[in-house]
Amino acid sequence: MSQKIVVIGAVAAGPKSACRARRLLPDAEITLIDQDDLISYGGCGIPYFVSGDVADEKELRSTSFHMVRDPYFFKEAKGLNVRTLTRALSIDRNAKVVHVENVKTGEKDQIPYDQLVLATGSRPNMIPIPGKELKGVFTISSLHKAIAIKDLLAQGKVGKAVVIGGGAIGIEMAESLADLWGVETTIVEFMPQILPRIVDVTIASMVQQHLKENGVACYTSEAAQKFEGNEQGWVSKVITNKRELECDLVIVAAGVRPRGELAKEAGLEVSPSGAIVVNQRMQTSDPSIYAAGDCVETYNLVTGKKAYAPMGSVANRQGRVVADNLAGIPSRFDGVVGSFIMKVFDICVGATGISTEVAVSEGYRAVNALVVQSDRAHFFPTQALMFNNLIVDASDKRVLGLQGYAKMGDGLLARINAAASMIAAGARISDFSNLEMAYAPPFSTAVDVLNAAANTADNLVEGRLKTVSTEEFVDWMDGRSEHSDWMAVDLRHPKEAEPWAAAYPDKWMALVYDKVRANYKDLPTDKTLILICNAGTRSYEIQVFLRSVGLDNTLVLPGGLNVIRRLGVSWWR
Amino acid sequence: MSQKIVVIGAVAAGPKSACRARRLLPDAEITLIDQDDLISYGGCGIPYFVSGDVADEKELRSTSFHMVRDPYFFKEAKGLNVRTLTRALSIDRNAKVVHVENVKTGEKDQIPYDQLVLATGSRPNMIPIPGKELKGVFTISSLHKAIAIKDLLAQGKVGKAVVIGGGAIGIEMAESLADLWGVETTIVEFMPQILPRIVDVTIASMVQQHLKENGVACYTSEAAQKFEGNEQGWVSKVITNKRELECDLVIVAAGVRPRGELAKEAGLEVSPSGAIVVNQRMQTSDPSIYAAGDCVETYNLVTGKKAYAPMGSVANRQGRVVADNLAGIPSRFDGVVGSFIMKVFDICVGATGISTEVAVSEGYRAVNALVVQSDRAHFFPTQALMFNNLIVDASDKRVLGLQGYAKMGDGLLARINAAASMIAAGARISDFSNLEMAYAPPFSTAVDVLNAAANTADNLVEGRLKTVSTEEFVDWMDGRSEHSDWMAVDLRHPKEAEPWAAAYPDKWMALVYDKVRANYKDLPTDKTLILICNAGTRSYEIQVFLRSVGLDNTLVLPGGLNVIRRLGVSWWR
Repeated sequence: MSQKIVVIGAVAAGPKSACRARRLLPDAEITLIDQDDLISYGGCGIPYFVSGDVADEKELRSTSFHMVRDPYFFKEAKGLNVRTLTRALSIDRNAKVVHVENVKTGEKDQIPYDQLVLATGSRPNMIPIPGKELKGVFTISSLHKAIAIKDLLAQGKVGKAVVIGGGAIGIEMAESLADLWGVETTIVEFMPQILPRIVDVTIASMVQQHLKENGVACYTSEAAQKFEGNEQGWVSKVITNKRELECDLVIVAAGVRPRGELAKEAGLEVSPSGAIVVNQRMQTSDPSIYAAGDCVETYNLVTGKKAYAPMGSVANRQGRVVADNLAGIPSRFDGVVGSFIMKVFDICVGATGISTEVAVSEGYRAVNALVVQSDRAHFFPTQALMFNNLIVDASDKRVLGLQGYAKMGDGLLARINAAASMIAAGARISDFSNLEMAYAPPFSTAVDVLNAAANTADNLVEGRLKTVSTEEFVDWMDGRSEHSDWMAVDLRHPKEAEPWAAAYPDKWMALVYDKVRANYKDLPTDKTLILICNAGTRSYEIQVFLRSVGLDNTLVLPGGLNVIRRLGVSWWR
Repeated sequence: MSQKIVVIGAVAAGPKSACRARRLLPDAEITLIDQDDLISYGGCGIPYFVSGDVADEKELRSTSFHMVRDPYFFKEAKGLNVRTLTRALSIDRNAKVVHVENVKTGEKDQIPYDQLVLATGSRPNMIPIPGKELKGVFTISSLHKAIAIKDLLAQGKVGKAVVIGGGAIGIEMAESLADLWGVETTIVEFMPQILPRIVDVTIASMVQQHLKENGVACYTSEAAQKFEGNEQGWVSKVITNKRELECDLVIVAAGVRPRGELAKEAGLEVSPSGAIVVNQRMQTSDPSIYAAGDCVETYNLVTGKKAYAPMGSVANRQGRVVADNLAGIPSRFDGVVGSFIMKVFDICVGATGISTEVAVSEGYRAVNALVVQSDRAHFFPTQALMFNNLIVDASDKRVLGLQGYAKMGDGLLARINAAASMIAAGARISDFSNLEMAYAPPFSTAVDVLNAAANTADNLVEGRLKTVSTEEFVDWMDGRSEHSDWMAVDLRHPKEAEPWAAAYPDKWMALVYDKVRANYKDLPTDKTLILICNAGTRSYEIQVFLRSVGLDNTLVLPGGLNVIRRLGVSWWR
């Protein structure tokens, strides 16, 4: 009698495990069920469908060779039994049966299994405030919701929108509304920065400024408290602790939580947050039942702690591991390092590993090196600046994370991907200094920006480089902090530096880089000198030189004015 | 008394070690000498200077903040003594002095050192054939040669050119001549493929076809035997073993060899090929003398064997290690993995690790998985195909190398860089399957092309996937090999497949992918069936299915027609 495999959930991990199981176990009878009628779609593509970059939702459900992944496809091409509109009600682990019902007809049935795969996914969080049931308040929980939002946009019904949540999905949705559709869009983020716990505050501030320059306002440290509606019961206003925002559409992008109820009710081990607990073979506490995707808990490979990583890419890799184990191949999924990248209008931002904030909260002696450099040879015509922020443990020089901000393109991806496996493997700063990135002038620099970030991190940990944080410097310049005993020393070309010195005579002086060795005695010794250039490298050299002549009263502004320029400060000249 | 450091050679490794030594050793007296007057230039940028992408040679000698790196710069900004036009004649290791002469005046001098750094670089190989001294026959040995070539082009004196050598520099120079200047350019390569030992033959053939489509002919397995000149002593013809090529310019790009003579004459250990032998601290056989850059030998981190890696990026990293060791910091340079990338007109090609050919010659049981996939979500508007070729050791599943071919951009860099550190660290196929590449639809796919290449390699090693090589299939189709007992089974949509089946009725049949399960009994069982689709994935699925019903007479064409299309075969429809 052939082995019976039942897979619950047909979006990402489910189809992946079912299809590979089909290839590895030609005799098995494999059944894939889902409560929806639209299955196997690229959920991460929803913002690009809403924006119009992707014209038809079918493209999100198609193979690269343009076949729609519908039940016909899974049956005829893949050789699976598929039952859509079929909800799993409960699992009888003794009888090895899944009880199901048809969501349209209510008809009940039971499906026997020898091995069961749970790929029940996640559901979006709705914030528990008054008005959350109003029409026009959406979460992005399925392709149906995306289609409904796009229909509203296409009908011209949305002039203003509020996105609750400044994480990746919130930002992507804000861009999709503002960019093509011209919707006046505001992001409200509860935490003090957007992309909280994903990137450090400096990078987040640069992204926030780029959003602003593209017409998307972001309010951080701000909480939506109430949604108000009009007479038709349609949302018309978001009231926060600081303001009222008129709108025709609200998108709540406040994270997702695992759908672990089915597993929990069947007596399987689930985490306090409801994620299904699996071992590294993706096996639940019942050896006949596997689980994968947004419904499971995993490990963070940097911290060694439990983690939740609801990502399509993770789901696919886990799905493959499930299939292998169903077929007796001992593949493992050990955890995640947290690789992330996203497009934000004309720039991109990415990360892997953990942020400085997370690292500090996890007990690391974390410091970060923010480095700005040309992404390719500075003489190559298409060069642009790339910002890399390397987070390291000063105790043992382990690299804990990397973040980047760059012109939209794949250049940042090249650094994030290179760092991902190394960080997961516990690489040290020296491994990054020596990392052999491919080099040719159209692609990179002889000392790649990632090598440079490692070298800078080493200088920082060894005390050769001493820095002021961008945020502290901005506070000083903005007059938000009391510091009369400092002076900015601008090392750039006099044509660049002197207008600043003239504008801020009490705070700013010009002394060009190549004249410091000759003229350093002109520098004040009774103040902290903030060394300023465009990128921070000249500043570092001058800091080292000044130390060698006994002047240790300097701090380097990391990334220099290239960072400041992207923050939208009022005193930019 | 302050420590005296002398650095011989001021292009890449030399200035790098001198400048960092300056920062680490503020009291040292550091002297940088070079026989040339143009120093510290980006030699890898020469093709882009010749092409016109870089307008002025000064850009190759400038910092990112637009200061020319001339003796003034190194003296005033960097605090070094610089002596250009100064040739090192010999090293007296007992007296610890370098004997030098001024190349213009002939004036001799000696420079004492406590520690010496040799960064004497490389010289290009000239092929030893008649006519090599003719005017118009160039190697790319210095910026002066590049300026001379560009002057000839700008004066309209070059209508036809021949490049000897189909390695990276030869191809870059050919592009630079053909693209902007419209020079009719031919590459002559002695080996059976271009980019020999760097990429596998299939990738090389795709690059060669792309060159052809852009007007650059490549003749492989062909040797230049003589250069002929006109009455003015200017080169007019290259005679190979197969043809005569008229030309006004010849560029010999036949590799470089280390300048190790100074070291050898001083009694330091050098390799049989003349490269200076250093330990992992970049120290020569004399502990007071370090060496770095194109003049040294290093290790290949994959094979564990000695290697020669004359690359600007390697030189910079080695230069930093030298400076650290001069200052008592025990940094190491352990070797190279061979990361490489280049632009070729509208595409790029890259590699890291070793090729199949090299792997086999080094005793590995090497197999390669060639995978074609969208570089980003196939529904995202800017998506393009990327070709990844993963070389693995079938004995232990270690990954030995990765090569790629893609649309020009940084997407390939993202895969090469990710693979580089993993290959150096001895990663296995499963590490690549699980590698957490950053994912979002504008950048990548949920299962990245590099993950997919690893999955395919695993299927190959485990015998689940059986392939025919592209070259063997092309030979069959071209009638160059005797094979009457095979049939191509085209699994694509009937609209795509049926014209091919009609054109080649004795070799080609159409059976669409999603009808195979229903109709597989129509397939011939007395022939080897070559399963054909656009990428190879449908073919693999069908191979697995057919095996499950007892048909084991199939071979998959890796990368499918997406590869064939790029080879320029005569039978393309």
